[in-house]
Order: sequence, then structure tokens, then C-alpha cells
Amino acid sequence: MNAIVITVSDSCFQGHRVDRSGPEVAVRLRQAGFTVDRNLIVPDDRERIAAEIREQAGRARLVVTTGGTGIALRDVTPEATRQVCDRILDGFGEHMRREGLKDTAFAPMSRAVSGTFGTTLIVNVPGSPRAAVASLEAVLPLIQHALALLSGDTEHSEPGRASGKK
Amino acid sequence: MNAIVITVSDSCFQGHRVDRSGPEVAVRLRQAGFTVDRNLIVPDDRERIAAEIREQAGRARLVVTTGGTGIALRDVTPEATRQVCDRILDGFGEHMRREGLKDTAFAPMSRAVSGTFGTTLIVNVPGSPRAAVASLEAVLPLIQHALALLSGDTEHSEPGRASGKK
Amino acid sequence: MNAIVITVSDSCFQGHRVDRSGPEVAVRLRQAGFTVDRNLIVPDDRERIAAEIREQAGRARLVVTTGGTGIALRDVTPEATRQVCDRILDGFGEHMRREGLKDTAFAPMSRAVSGTFGTTLIVNVPGSPRAAVASLEAVLPLIQHALALLSGDTEHSEPGRASGKK
Repeated sequence: MNAIVITVSDSCFQGHRVDRSGPEVAVRLRQAGFTVDRNLIVPDDRERIAAEIREQAGRARLVVTTGGTGIALRDVTPEATRQVCDRILDGFGEHMRREGLKDTAFAPMSRAVSGTFGTTLIVNVPGSPRAAVASLEAVLPLIQHALALLSGDTEHSEPGRASGKK
Repeated sequence: MNAIVITVSDSCFQGHRVDRSGPEVAVRLRQAGFTVDRNLIVPDDRERIAAEIREQAGRARLVVTTGGTGIALRDVTPEATRQVCDRILDGFGEHMRREGLKDTAFAPMSRAVSGTFGTTLIVNVPGSPRAAVASLEAVLPLIQHALALLSGDTEHSEPGRASGKK
Repeated sequence: MNAIVITVSDSCFQGHRVDRSGPEVAVRLRQAGFTVDRNLIVPDDRERIAAEIREQAGRARLVVTTGGTGIALRDVTPEATRQVCDRILDGFGEHMRREGLKDTAFAPMSRAVSGTFGTTLIVNVPGSPRAAVASLEAVLPLIQHALALLSGDTEHSEPGRASGKK
């Protein structure tokens, strides 16, 4: 299954910094069985992030963004993601923050959201390579289950009909 | 106190499947002291769910929906609930998901929300009988406290004035 | 750094009750190094709460409200806060509720939200003195980190670039 990683960062976009998070997220996704043939870098601009998510959602079933989930004034990835998504999955961000507390007391500061856009799943993770990979790992089993459900494969729901469908 | 259970399910509505969650939720509510004289079944249609919640809120102080809280494309109960509610109680869904982790690693996938519509409390629980009852049990003490507060019985607030009123 | 405390309470505003939460929150903020030269009391009115938050945000980098976060019909502080904020910090309310469970099973009932308005941080805490101080303490390290990030001090981010900026 195809996945696309979008790095959101002004300084990476301008070439002032080398993107490490995007490639590390891609490596972790490949280990989990995804094909990742595209890493993109966009600046911290709400409209450009939203447009990129929307376009890539047409090419892949999973779009992971890294960066722009914090509290600094330029951090607008969650807003862009909410703008695109049909439905928000509050439990994904909650779970990342709760799991993140095992690593840092600042985990509750992440504003990362996840949601669906048609049958594509959009997942925000933070911008630091370490937090990006840790957040992704926290929700990887949820991602795989969600993609099966979005494909109409309700037999994967658990226990019984965890999707709420019957 | 009256409660009404609404089962949200295309297949139950069409008669292709027997509704088990609705009756099990009703049994649990009766054990908790509620009078449940009505179980309804509606299809996974946002407008119909919203209309039913709104209508039943005129007849009972508590409306519990089961089903449609997952991630499959037809799951729209949370959206219908948000559309009706005056105010959302984020802590109820959070608490169900956190408690649900004791039972299944997929608990964070539930999008169940709760909220108020006038003095009526609306609570979404998932569609599987097991997850429905477990989610209800997780928030039953909160439900009883919330209904007291919505009745203006601020003496029930705890500790001191947990309702935020003073 | 300046902080302002706004007590939201009809009965305190009308002089029927002495405000204890506001002063206790102010004491705790001073212990944490903030200058608190102003405690305000407003009634449970959404527009007046929003106007007060907006005005005080022009005078201080931190505005803490106490009261109006519950489920009673007059509790509208979270709605007023959402109306003012540019961005919501879901993790702050989540963290208060999770930490609050150590003290009371009713902690999930708080609807307290936090968010940013320009470079000012707005934080709701409940109205009871005990819950107000406990909630504030749960997020104090996050508040201090958030204010540094809002000042553009990304060197304080942790670990590495927990702010999501790079």
C-alpha cells in the first residue's frame, strides 16, 4: 500500500536545513510494509499544506505529515489538516500524546490531528525526528486497522465490530 | 429518569441483522436505575440520526446511541451528534477510549462523542455489544452526575464545586 | 512575565459569594514567577467572558480563567475561549482531566480548554479552588514552555524540536 510523507518546514523548504524527519518517517513506514515513493517538503503555509495533502490523498491511501504541530506562531499543520478532512479521529492525537508522556513531559503540547479524506487516512506527527517516529509508532496498529476499515474490510474490526458497523 | 436508546445501523434498520447492542445497553441502563421504554433503530444517515436524537431529547433526559462511531465511510453518528449538541463534553469520549485500552488496543479508534442539548445528555457508544456496554459503564458515574447538574442540582458537584459553578 | 486571572461566576460577580479561586490561582502563579496585578470577576455570559479575555490578552502573555467549565447550563467559559483563540491546544485540557483522575473520578467532566490568541496563552481551569489549583499545577510546565515558544524562543523546545519547527 502506498504512503506519502510531507515534511512541513519553512527552513527545510528554503534549503536552510536538511530534512531528517521525513526520511526517518519513510523508513519506519517501509518497515511496516508501506511503499513510500515520495517525500515532499512544503513551507509552514496553511493553504499550501492543505493543497498538498489534498493532492497526495489522490495518489496514496496514507499521507503522513511531519512538522508544524507545535505552538509556535507558524505552526499551522493541524489547521490545514482539519480543513481537508471529512472526519477527525480524536483518539489518534490523544493516543500519541498519552504515549509520548513516557518520553517527555511536553508531549501534551503536540496539536497533531488525524482524520480521513475519502478513503485516505491523514496523520500528523511532530517535526522532531525522535518525536515523529515515536508518534508514528504509537498509532501504527491503528493506521493499519483504519486503512482496512476504510477499504470496507469490516472483517478486520475488533473485537467483533469495533468499527461500530453491524 | 427516562432514557432512550437509539441503535444506528443500516443492516439492523433493513432487517438483515438482529440488533443486540441496543437491548444490551438498555439492560445496563435499567440496572443503573433508568426507565428505558423505547429502543429505536435508524440507518447510518447523518440527517436521520440528528433528527431522531433531537426528537427523543424532547422525551428523555438521556439519549444513548450505539453504532456509527467508527472510521468506516458510513460511520457518521459523531457528526450527527455534534450537529445537535449545544455543548460537547470532550472528557467523556476521552475517558471511554482510555478505559477501553484495558480491553483492546483499538479503543482509540472510537470517535464517540457526548454532549448536551438543553438539559438532555447525549452519549455515543460504539456498535459492538461488548464495546457498547463497556463504554457505557466507563461513563455511567459521569452520566448520573451530569444529569444532576443539568437539573440545576449543583449540590451534587464534587469536590466542592466541580461543576465550575459557584 | 505578567499574568491575569479572570474569575467567571455569576454569584461572585453579584457579590453573593466571595471569590476564593481567583486569589488562590494568583498565589500559585506568583509562586511560579508570574506577576499577577489584576484579578477580574465576570458573570457567566459568553460575550462578556470573550470580551474580557480579548482585552486582557492585550495586557498579559498569560490569561487564566477559573469557573464556568462544567456542564451546568450557565457554564460557557470554554465556548467563550474557543471564540477568542486562534488555535486550540487540545492536549492541555486532556492532561488536566487525566491528572485530575488522581483526585476525583469526576475529572473527565471538566470542559476546560486552552489556546493561543496571538502570542498570549489562554488557560481555563475549573471553578472550585481545589480543582482550579490542581489543574493549573498539572499544566504549569506546559504553560512556561508554551510562552517561550510563543516568544519565538525555539531553543527551549524539547527534545530537539518538540515544537514541530525546524
